[in-house]
Amino acid sequence: MNKITQLFNIKYPIIQGGMIWCSGWELASAVSNAGGLGLIGSGSMYPEVLRQHIQKCKSATNKPFGVNVPLLYPQTDDHIQVILDERVKIVFTSAGNPKKYTSFLKEKGIIVVHVIANVKFAIKCEEAGVDAIVAEGFEAGGHNGFEETTTMALIPQIKNAVSVPVIAAGGIGSGRSMLAAVALGADGVQIGSRFAASIESSAHENFKSAIVNAGDGDTKLMMKKVVPVRLIKNEFYQRVQNAEDYGATAEELKEILGRARAKKGMFEGDLKEGELEIGQVSGYINEILSVEKIINEMVLEYNSTINSLEKI
Amino acid sequence: MNKITQLFNIKYPIIQGGMIWCSGWELASAVSNAGGLGLIGSGSMYPEVLRQHIQKCKSATNKPFGVNVPLLYPQTDDHIQVILDERVKIVFTSAGNPKKYTSFLKEKGIIVVHVIANVKFAIKCEEAGVDAIVAEGFEAGGHNGFEETTTMALIPQIKNAVSVPVIAAGGIGSGRSMLAAVALGADGVQIGSRFAASIESSAHENFKSAIVNAGDGDTKLMMKKVVPVRLIKNEFYQRVQNAEDYGATAEELKEILGRARAKKGMFEGDLKEGELEIGQVSGYINEILSVEKIINEMVLEYNSTINSLEKI
Repeated sequence: MNKITQLFNIKYPIIQGGMIWCSGWELASAVSNAGGLGLIGSGSMYPEVLRQHIQKCKSATNKPFGVNVPLLYPQTDDHIQVILDERVKIVFTSAGNPKKYTSFLKEKGIIVVHVIANVKFAIKCEEAGVDAIVAEGFEAGGHNGFEETTTMALIPQIKNAVSVPVIAAGGIGSGRSMLAAVALGADGVQIGSRFAASIESSAHENFKSAIVNAGDGDTKLMMKKVVPVRLIKNEFYQRVQNAEDYGATAEELKEILGRARAKKGMFEGDLKEGELEIGQVSGYINEILSVEKIINEMVLEYNSTINSLEKI
Repeated sequence: MNKITQLFNIKYPIIQGGMIWCSGWELASAVSNAGGLGLIGSGSMYPEVLRQHIQKCKSATNKPFGVNVPLLYPQTDDHIQVILDERVKIVFTSAGNPKKYTSFLKEKGIIVVHVIANVKFAIKCEEAGVDAIVAEGFEAGGHNGFEETTTMALIPQIKNAVSVPVIAAGGIGSGRSMLAAVALGADGVQIGSRFAASIESSAHENFKSAIVNAGDGDTKLMMKKVVPVRLIKNEFYQRVQNAEDYGATAEELKEILGRARAKKGMFEGDLKEGELEIGQVSGYINEILSVEKIINEMVLEYNSTINSLEKI
């Protein structure tokens, strides 16, 4: 029993990151049923779609689950209304100012966690009254911070700066890396990529195969003049890379990105022209397993690695 | 006693990274005397200067120490000759092909370690017959790999790929982060930044202060079109950043870099126009301590963190 398992009333301090196009009710309920905390990723959902996912998730598990709300879409207020209507008890906000919704949600009795990638925003989170922070390193998939601080360097700095519980994210896809995060001072971990490649993930099978096939150096953080995003190196990536090499502006990059490219890649399975958001741990994800198997293996490896540690 | 302490015949599996302008005989001998493995960084030394440092190091410690040889300078053959003349028993090579000197040095009875930043070169190292590998993540200071793989994501992949002992580098500046590296599978750690800011470091006091003053997000990996290098954001950095934003070529970047800029920054203390190579852990280095104190604190924290870990 630690701060994180206590906060969410879960068995293991393992949170499944809310990811666009990957984490619907099926993934979230599977993670919660296996003893972690599942999150429905609302970023790719219309409000009414989110409502359906929440309702299905409630039917699929009697364990706690939550919803991740990126604060960068125009529909955020509608998402929040659905969350209140459906009496969701846990909300992870990300990609925005933690002061925007935290006190409002807390007043409704909701547990609020905010995702950050630097010390400055960790302090803002604490001031805003969050119950916990997700501190996400450079190696994480999808959208990321401008500081490029890695999980290894970030977690100790966050622990020095705030006293709320810290959930480490980025670079965690195994029991060993989970233990590494805890050794650094984290109270729990948030895992994205490993669950994106699970059986219960709603990602397209092509995308899951691309994660399994990715090796060391096959992802890169791009689009830094717009919003940094880590993605698999494919044809679309190469066009962005070429443009960036020649000094493309934010406007030119947005034009190359166009619309719905993440959906095209991760949900429709277009591996050439889609945006394939995934973390560096894809380099050692080699099979598509069930959520239960992933979590059980992770816990087993976590515990056996503790046994193997020797004092010096 | 583990693979690394056994290989080098040292007390703690802590290696001090060979760094230009920071790690002369004084730092290397202090680390060796404190139970780690000190390395003289030959990269910034003329061959005869290296000889003097080796001789002084021998006088200052009866413990094992080594020399780091970056394989990118025209004088490498002369450095190697000095190392043979002076009967140095441990050589770390970096920034080049491990096949170039490994078997030659091994035939002379020298323990050879090569520094890499990706899986491909780790395999090359093993084929070349090295005794161990340093696997260095994106967060490390100074020159770095093109793959941008962080220590958290790199170490597990290296462990899967090779069977020689692995020394983790990048993002390690405390007992907790050392334990994190071991949890990931590393047999030992190489530490640069923390020792660059020690009393025994030969860096300019201004540079040591700059390390202490650096916070989260104050370093960045630059010059990717030439050789990637992580440095503190100062006036020189800003010129590079502006040039890169506008798509500067490798030639233009080399012109901005000019000559002797690392010396200007790290050895002469010009914080505005010098190149200040340091890792992301500078964000939590807050004082300049003696090597002995750094190592003792690190070991203490390592052991006490093991005590604090609980199975889940």
